Amino acid sequence: MENKEVFFIIGLGLIGGSFALDIKTKCENAVIYGIDNDEQHLHKALDLGIIDHKATFEDIALADWIIVAVPVDKTVVVLNDVLGKIHNNAIVFDVGSTKFEICEALKSHDKRRNFIATHPIAGTEFSGPEAALTNLFLEKTNIICEVEKTAFVFQEKALQLFKDIGMRIRYMDPLSHDKHIAYMSHLSHISSFMLGKTVIEEEKNQRDIFDMAGSGFESTVRLAKSSPAMWTPIFKQNKEQVVKALSEYIANLENFKTLLEEERLEDIYTTMQETNRIKEILIKK
Amino acid sequence: MENKEVFFIIGLGLIGGSFALDIKTKCENAVIYGIDNDEQHLHKALDLGIIDHKATFEDIALADWIIVAVPVDKTVVVLNDVLGKIHNNAIVFDVGSTKFEICEALKSHDKRRNFIATHPIAGTEFSGPEAALTNLFLEKTNIICEVEKTAFVFQEKALQLFKDIGMRIRYMDPLSHDKHIAYMSHLSHISSFMLGKTVIEEEKNQRDIFDMAGSGFESTVRLAKSSPAMWTPIFKQNKEQVVKALSEYIANLENFKTLLEEERLEDIYTTMQETNRIKEILIKK
Repeated sequence: MENKEVFFIIGLGLIGGSFALDIKTKCENAVIYGIDNDEQHLHKALDLGIIDHKATFEDIALADWIIVAVPVDKTVVVLNDVLGKIHNNAIVFDVGSTKFEICEALKSHDKRRNFIATHPIAGTEFSGPEAALTNLFLEKTNIICEVEKTAFVFQEKALQLFKDIGMRIRYMDPLSHDKHIAYMSHLSHISSFMLGKTVIEEEKNQRDIFDMAGSGFESTVRLAKSSPAMWTPIFKQNKEQVVKALSEYIANLENFKTLLEEERLEDIYTTMQETNRIKEILIKK
Repeated sequence: MENKEVFFIIGLGLIGGSFALDIKTKCENAVIYGIDNDEQHLHKALDLGIIDHKATFEDIALADWIIVAVPVDKTVVVLNDVLGKIHNNAIVFDVGSTKFEICEALKSHDKRRNFIATHPIAGTEFSGPEAALTNLFLEKTNIICEVEKTAFVFQEKALQLFKDIGMRIRYMDPLSHDKHIAYMSHLSHISSFMLGKTVIEEEKNQRDIFDMAGSGFESTVRLAKSSPAMWTPIFKQNKEQVVKALSEYIANLENFKTLLEEERLEDIYTTMQETNRIKEILIKK
């Protein structure tokens, strides 16, 4: 193991697997161990060369880095377990789409200084080790919460790793993260899932109607392909903020419906025109 | 003009412009005239080589083909005018996203047999002649309504043209078209516009929050970049079906919100899992 850096990746799905692929490319001396509840995922990850070895939680003390990439309800449990087992210089980070509950649960942990709470804004609608992609994180944003609670030396090392795989960093407190991500990500998933549901319900006896699906529908409904196992606990953990965003979204849809029923075409036009601003906003980001 | 086929394209936006580009490539003997209310669009289309010549409605009798690609409220007016001016062997088609009102308005026209009501399911969120693309229609569906009202000889010629630019054909009655397209296209646009509106309203004082926009948000909000001038009349013409689809969408969102408020996580999981079926449906189409 001399000169080797030992990475443990817990959860070999899209995000965990993509980290493994990038780390292999960027860190010559990395050895990657994988842990996953699902034996099939573990074998698949080995077959695809995503990980070098299988491992278990008993081996955690070997790790210099531990990346926890499991659904957010399990993240809290796994992080507690992992932090109890690591050596003093190990760095642990999670990649969950919610940050408040995770940061709260760990705030008084003995090894809090070894932990860095992150949310890489990257992904696709697919899941499992087969969905892992090299360069998934290139030019994407990684949000780090409560960075001041991580020891400086570990901050430095982690930032270098994120930089090596091409990410830009933003710092945010966990509550602000959860509030804004409800609008910027969680709401999109619900709007897309419910669009898919509405269309499937209407067209259930008319399969050939899907010939009418253009690229617009496909793009808007894309997130409805996402994993329920990943998204159910995210919605639960961020319930309050998601319900707020969803209520505002429904109110805007209700308002649009009223405008249409009353044929207030100028208002409809103006609403859409004002929203066109999303073009410039997304270009500037 | 010997051996030349004269195409008139009325409305030099994304769709009209893209037809012009493909026709130039596929029909060696095509000469393309353009008509547009907007002088700038007309000049741009000339500059970009999309059309060969500017024209006016006074020149329509020269045309062998007339493609009407203007917003759907103007389509009815323009088609009436055009059909009154064409020679006996000219073929006229529109490309509007609604079909019932257009077919109704023309059903008793003397030249109904020269007209073919189509809806090419193709496009992007951009508009104007700069948005025109070659091969936009390749492998896309073109829906033809009330084909039996078009003279057989004109059907044949039009089908050949659509085939030449790579489209597959589906036949549908105008009411069914409008009903299904409300779900497959119009609803996606509203869901996307209102998502953009909700997020802009929430984040208006926090521009840097858009750093948090991932590819999921961008994909779901893409259609909110679309042209209000095109979409306002579509929603108006298809008001009844769009209101129905929108009501069902809102009911599904309300239901999801209730499930989340009550933390009925199994039901949330099942709802998303059932909607994942959209994957197979879209692959099979």
